[in-house]
Amino acid sequence: MNDTRQHKALLFDVFGTVVDWKGSITRELTAYAQNHSLAEVEWEQFAIDWRALYQPAMEKIRSGDRGYVRLDTLHRENLLELLPKHGLTTLSDEQIDHINHVWHRLQPWPDCLPGMYRLRRQFTLCSLSNGNIALMVNMARHSAIPWDAILGSEPTRGYKPQPQVYLKSAEMLGLTPQQCIMVAAHNDDLRAAAKLGFATAYINRPYEYGAAQSVDFEADESWDFISDSMTGIADLLGC
Amino acid sequence: MNDTRQHKALLFDVFGTVVDWKGSITRELTAYAQNHSLAEVEWEQFAIDWRALYQPAMEKIRSGDRGYVRLDTLHRENLLELLPKHGLTTLSDEQIDHINHVWHRLQPWPDCLPGMYRLRRQFTLCSLSNGNIALMVNMARHSAIPWDAILGSEPTRGYKPQPQVYLKSAEMLGLTPQQCIMVAAHNDDLRAAAKLGFATAYINRPYEYGAAQSVDFEADESWDFISDSMTGIADLLGC
Repeated sequence: MNDTRQHKALLFDVFGTVVDWKGSITRELTAYAQNHSLAEVEWEQFAIDWRALYQPAMEKIRSGDRGYVRLDTLHRENLLELLPKHGLTTLSDEQIDHINHVWHRLQPWPDCLPGMYRLRRQFTLCSLSNGNIALMVNMARHSAIPWDAILGSEPTRGYKPQPQVYLKSAEMLGLTPQQCIMVAAHNDDLRAAAKLGFATAYINRPYEYGAAQSVDFEADESWDFISDSMTGIADLLGC
Repeated sequence: MNDTRQHKALLFDVFGTVVDWKGSITRELTAYAQNHSLAEVEWEQFAIDWRALYQPAMEKIRSGDRGYVRLDTLHRENLLELLPKHGLTTLSDEQIDHINHVWHRLQPWPDCLPGMYRLRRQFTLCSLSNGNIALMVNMARHSAIPWDAILGSEPTRGYKPQPQVYLKSAEMLGLTPQQCIMVAAHNDDLRAAAKLGFATAYINRPYEYGAAQSVDFEADESWDFISDSMTGIADLLGC
């Protein structure tokens, strides 16, 4: 399992693993609210509440209750539900779109780019996220994330942990699951990938949710590679 | 039409526009045949004959006679048809796979990377090719082509000039056709894109096929941007 010569590609979870969604949203929307004289909001709590609506929204699609729609759409629906709860009732459509696209401007954890630019010399690097293509492309351009391809949810028309999202992503690279390493800060994501034959790399991010964190304080299982950082994963893979 | 501020993304034809398939295949297979003591073959003619089987193979899929299969599969079927005609009857499966993957190792025209690295600062750059994802990813890694995303045939399950290949690619970027510029060395490709609302950039490659060239000696229509090189397109777009 730890023979790295057979591995050709690293497939990455993105929200929480590569980028700091809570910190990025809090920082950007705090500044935006000040510049646009919006009502006072606890933006870190806002980010956490927004993220909490993510799984139930995807679950309707995973269960078949709803056809596939991309994450930008789910994020906007969830945002419309959330804004009045935080006292924001007078935003224009343009402001709502701008806030919704904060997900396109998330910033990497400080260890990510140094690690990924080392890893890319040896491995193909692809996103295997529930984020849609435009979101991932714009984020990569905003934050200099060196993807070789955007895979995951939209090209495979599903949401993790549905098996097709992992399997079709590997297949689109012309690879078997055994030739791919799934990289994530979430034990559940790795469990789903491992069950399908993927190798696994866990990056510990016990600070992803701040005080609201309830899971993923450490590796739950003996994943193939375990580290506290992307540079640590690069070390383990000999890059 | 020439207001470049509205344009957000450049979508590129690849074979012939970005990479020199004939020259790359000829160079690589000439060396490969020498190193492996293969029968003597006119490799430039071989490349042209292989390429000639491309349109009829895709046409079966466009017409609905056959379900979608990726270009790697069509290339291999065409290769199996071609090899005996050129006197190559004793290749191993491994050798055939290696030769088939020469398309994954095509090299850009000399003007392409200098132009594309300038263009990417201002525009999102995506492939909109009939090549499949693995082919495009491996080619980009081999030749340092800076794609933001691999779109086109495989993510949209079609072959150009089918409209969905262009329209769904733009939609995956969250853009209208009017916000995208199709870049190609082939007038037909630009005609199909223009009909759907895309802006158009023509790069003249009258030497793509060598002596076998029969079309695309010049711009047939008044495309929005016309140049002899990718760097010329970057000049026209103010990059």
